[in-house]
Amino acid sequence: MQPAEPVQSAARPVGRGAKVRAAVHAATLAELLDKGYAALSVEDIAQRAGVHKTTVYRRWVDRDSLLVDALADHLATDLPVPNTGAIETDLRALARSLVQMFTSSTGQAILAAMFTGAAHLPEIAAARRHVFDDRLTRGEPVVARAIERGELPRDTDAAELLKTLAAPIYLRLLITAEPVNEATADQAVRVTLAAARAGALRPARVSKAATG
Amino acid sequence: MQPAEPVQSAARPVGRGAKVRAAVHAATLAELLDKGYAALSVEDIAQRAGVHKTTVYRRWVDRDSLLVDALADHLATDLPVPNTGAIETDLRALARSLVQMFTSSTGQAILAAMFTGAAHLPEIAAARRHVFDDRLTRGEPVVARAIERGELPRDTDAAELLKTLAAPIYLRLLITAEPVNEATADQAVRVTLAAARAGALRPARVSKAATG
Repeated sequence: MQPAEPVQSAARPVGRGAKVRAAVHAATLAELLDKGYAALSVEDIAQRAGVHKTTVYRRWVDRDSLLVDALADHLATDLPVPNTGAIETDLRALARSLVQMFTSSTGQAILAAMFTGAAHLPEIAAARRHVFDDRLTRGEPVVARAIERGELPRDTDAAELLKTLAAPIYLRLLITAEPVNEATADQAVRVTLAAARAGALRPARVSKAATG
Repeated sequence: MQPAEPVQSAARPVGRGAKVRAAVHAATLAELLDKGYAALSVEDIAQRAGVHKTTVYRRWVDRDSLLVDALADHLATDLPVPNTGAIETDLRALARSLVQMFTSSTGQAILAAMFTGAAHLPEIAAARRHVFDDRLTRGEPVVARAIERGELPRDTDAAELLKTLAAPIYLRLLITAEPVNEATADQAVRVTLAAARAGALRPARVSKAATG
């Protein structure tokens, strides 16, 4: 078993440690974008980040641990949580930001690494789950505010709703390989809102009781 | 570029060719189930199928071409298309059969190969698309019959509907790694029917005109 977590040197001053970490993460994604997963090397990453190779190995066990850490960090940040005052425009912003992320050149490289090149790494499955859970947690206030405004049934399950929103986008990215664009995002919003308004996105127990 | 299609000897009598093909496919899946993708070998597959290694290589370029062919063949067959007389029970049968397939031990091995172990193979992406398209085509009569019975709006898009049904199941299998069971299938049916009845599953052009 390899450690799934990067080796962090907790004793180091935060300022410098955080700077090195950010520089190495950025270099990792840039190398991934340029060369793809198979050709990714710690040597090239270190050179691009302007640090010595041993600096990288002091913090991360190997190339794959570094990659997973950089991917998770990149995907976890940078999600603006919309607050437009209406559930439809909030969900549209969320869905469009997901589409934008995965259709950018960096997003495409990340997607290819997570679901193709590096899909065999045990840490990748955990990273996917972690990133997704993080996004769910960040999106929950959008649903809570809509319930407060009376736009959705009181017992709407926020996680179910956000998964319904994301699911058709991932299906197209990962399986059907159809084009993914703003129309895909907007269509996901229509389906999600119709389901939520019809009471189909209540917690599992409630839904089960309702259908007997 | 490697040929994505297995080499088929068209001159051979169909009976024997089909038998060998079926035996080798079955042995491939059995070996995949026992040993996983990384340890899969043409030698073991041939031995299990009771044929000589050269018989395998006459028909398939390499291990990976054989695997992709066996996966696609297995996933393309064996989908009973329900005709219960009502859209809700038809969709429930479809969704539950998808869940059953991917939660069986063979299904889990196939899923692991297609999305983890062998995810880096160029042929795998094509196989995923192909299998999915095939299932969409087979499922379309279910939607057509529901429209005829007046259960769904006349302009319901069958492919959109079936993708809405499958999407949350794949999201759980591939990303969130949550348990997938009959409740997952039934919940997917509720969401899909609510969206379809609300007119959210019409062809893209119609939907765009409606919100434009």
